[in-house]
Amino acid sequence: MAKLQSVFNMRHLLVLSLALNVSLILRILYDGTHQDLFFFYNHHQGQTSNLHKPRLLISSSSSSSFSNSSSSTCKDHHQQPPININNNKNRVINLDHGDPRVYEEFWKELGEKTTITIPGWQSMSYFSDVSNKVCWFLEPELAKEVVRLHGVVGNAVTEDRHIIVGTGSSQLFLAALYALSPTDSPEPISVVSASPYYSSYPSMTDYQKSGLYKWGGDAEKFEKSGPYIELVTSPNNPDGCVRRSVLNRTEGLLVYDLAYYWPHYTPISSPADHDLTLFTLSKTTGHAGMRIGWALVKDKEVAKKMTKFIELNTIGVSKDSQLRAAKVLRAVSDSCELQGDGESFFKFSHKLMSNRWKQLREAVHRSNGLFSVPTFSPSFCTFFNQNLEPHPAFVWLKCEGNVEDCERFLKGHNILTRSGKHFGVSQQYVRISMLDTHENFMHFLDRLSTINSR
Amino acid sequence: MAKLQSVFNMRHLLVLSLALNVSLILRILYDGTHQDLFFFYNHHQGQTSNLHKPRLLISSSSSSSFSNSSSSTCKDHHQQPPININNNKNRVINLDHGDPRVYEEFWKELGEKTTITIPGWQSMSYFSDVSNKVCWFLEPELAKEVVRLHGVVGNAVTEDRHIIVGTGSSQLFLAALYALSPTDSPEPISVVSASPYYSSYPSMTDYQKSGLYKWGGDAEKFEKSGPYIELVTSPNNPDGCVRRSVLNRTEGLLVYDLAYYWPHYTPISSPADHDLTLFTLSKTTGHAGMRIGWALVKDKEVAKKMTKFIELNTIGVSKDSQLRAAKVLRAVSDSCELQGDGESFFKFSHKLMSNRWKQLREAVHRSNGLFSVPTFSPSFCTFFNQNLEPHPAFVWLKCEGNVEDCERFLKGHNILTRSGKHFGVSQQYVRISMLDTHENFMHFLDRLSTINSR
Repeated sequence: MAKLQSVFNMRHLLVLSLALNVSLILRILYDGTHQDLFFFYNHHQGQTSNLHKPRLLISSSSSSSFSNSSSSTCKDHHQQPPININNNKNRVINLDHGDPRVYEEFWKELGEKTTITIPGWQSMSYFSDVSNKVCWFLEPELAKEVVRLHGVVGNAVTEDRHIIVGTGSSQLFLAALYALSPTDSPEPISVVSASPYYSSYPSMTDYQKSGLYKWGGDAEKFEKSGPYIELVTSPNNPDGCVRRSVLNRTEGLLVYDLAYYWPHYTPISSPADHDLTLFTLSKTTGHAGMRIGWALVKDKEVAKKMTKFIELNTIGVSKDSQLRAAKVLRAVSDSCELQGDGESFFKFSHKLMSNRWKQLREAVHRSNGLFSVPTFSPSFCTFFNQNLEPHPAFVWLKCEGNVEDCERFLKGHNILTRSGKHFGVSQQYVRISMLDTHENFMHFLDRLSTINSR
Repeated sequence: MAKLQSVFNMRHLLVLSLALNVSLILRILYDGTHQDLFFFYNHHQGQTSNLHKPRLLISSSSSSSFSNSSSSTCKDHHQQPPININNNKNRVINLDHGDPRVYEEFWKELGEKTTITIPGWQSMSYFSDVSNKVCWFLEPELAKEVVRLHGVVGNAVTEDRHIIVGTGSSQLFLAALYALSPTDSPEPISVVSASPYYSSYPSMTDYQKSGLYKWGGDAEKFEKSGPYIELVTSPNNPDGCVRRSVLNRTEGLLVYDLAYYWPHYTPISSPADHDLTLFTLSKTTGHAGMRIGWALVKDKEVAKKMTKFIELNTIGVSKDSQLRAAKVLRAVSDSCELQGDGESFFKFSHKLMSNRWKQLREAVHRSNGLFSVPTFSPSFCTFFNQNLEPHPAFVWLKCEGNVEDCERFLKGHNILTRSGKHFGVSQQYVRISMLDTHENFMHFLDRLSTINSR
């Protein structure tokens, strides 16, 4: 009987193993097809003029601030495979969205450490933690890992804060507006942000035509008296600048969107210590598909109202993704604290972003004044313990000279970007994602060079 | 080398197996503790007067319509463990929420078939299917299983329908209101539903104080001319009745909430064929923690606007939960179509609900007129191919006689329910969940008997 049971267990294991193998084989096959479709569509043209340039750039890691400090036993994640760029100008490069595919390589290298297994009968209830009187749908494991990671990185104070989990930070943004809006006001409270502001703020604020809150535009131009909500994104999306509140009036309520306040994007100056702060997994680790964000909230009543919003909006947040997010955050903290047999996540991602920015600046430099990008002064990073330059998740690119509509101009070259007009400024600017796949980024650099050579 | 690799693979398998074992052991330990806390808190009182009655009722399956038709080789899932009810009146029985814990046993019995494993580097992108021009965040696997299950059950037409996935059907409800509301109207469109209506409809409609839509109350009393949105929940939450639109005016837009139109709750008469229909996994299979719902939408523009809503609300829906939901739905369809070594999910759940309703009616009968519950006529179910009685997910219980506030009366006996006033009717009614755990349901029956004996 014991033997039969053992054989039975082995069968289960085999099924699991086979499923894993099939999934890996399919993945490899899929990746292959994907590459074929994208890179060899017009291979008969035989245009390979820019083949070596980007490859040379990406395999170089000498530019990294960490090239000397990184352990020689660490595997260098930057040894990206060469990309076959055949200069197919018909290929559309979509860098409009900030889809954070850039970190996939790290998670592949880490292997099974962040693999999650959920049996069919687990996490069935609506409730995650009935003892949590502020947010009953927050998985305790996720809360623990959020606190731990902020402690490890030193980018936010978590003491005396309530953690509210959301279906991405978008939902938490809406929950914050709901929680901060006065209920007895005859007119909606104004929601403002200094331009260039995140392009989705106006539509997210106004799409429901809420009587509670209303988009009030550029904070710098806001003159109305009375209460208001100011959104402070720091580092800012789209331009990567470190920001503070611009209004500083007594009746202002502040929401800090710190999605990019992580060491791979910007030097960490001190732990953020605000009343209401938003973070999101998508920009922290690249797991956008999970739709997990969290808010750190000082005031209990505000936190409870945010919970109420999420109750009425989606009756909680996916438990599966919360559990997976907890595992991913734990792996990030472990990689920083333990560093036994690999590079820390932030060291990896900082090096990667540093390389991309170096390559981009070189490409822009070659444009002979057709494009310009912001420059940033280095500052001290308490996490890396040295002076470092910021490497924002987006390039805030400006078309110089006669080009008035930069988005349109780049679209003419099959590069999709987001126009400055959506961020409340001139159409001479566009936002371009720096977080896309290695392939797409290489094609983008190559395409930029093609524009220059015209 | 090959041998080394094989040993390495075996080690991986062992780690997986160990992780599974640890998780199962922890679960068993946890369940044990849980039971201890709930059931033996006041065991020194030694009150066991009602110990055998509920156990006898629950182990009986002679009442089931399927007792004759079920295969003798099938494991009888109804052999629930005996519950030690020590008549502790201080224990609060919370049946206010419809937390669908009732089906956990089925999924435990099914074992690893619905276990999902997601590596850390999978499902990172925002996008699920860029070729889907209506809903880019819908996992194709989930769409396939939704169509398959509706085909297997015969409860909804899926041909010429767009599938929109949501973070539970709550989000889809809001997306539907957003999509159906006219954008150019000077005042918000009225949203109505015949009472007793789902208690969350008014607050979900009005919490944002939207200028697009506004709760208009009981559809039966709605007299305003012009366009309106009517919500038709069938079978209805809270009372389990099969419903149709009550207004039938040309300017009406209909949203069908068919969360309970599944064979375990109600006989399936024909495939639902409406313009906009909502379903949710929580009530279908009991996986409330996943927060997955789906809408079947006829009009492409309405479907696109619903997608837009979800984009602005949460930028898509958790991929992890979508993948897990696909696996669970596949297991349900498989259990209906293949039935090799087990009972179908709906046979199991129908038997279970049938037993619970039988036990409840017996308890109510013993109340000597203190309580009453609705009665339902049997009708033909195309899925089970026989005449069957409905077994709603909630009991719509009425306190007869002098009790004016039934919720308060039951609260005095430590039974938490939801008052009729939240559903737009008299406080003599309460809604009581029939989907809670075996333990809670047994305690509830026992408590009802205690009330009667006073």
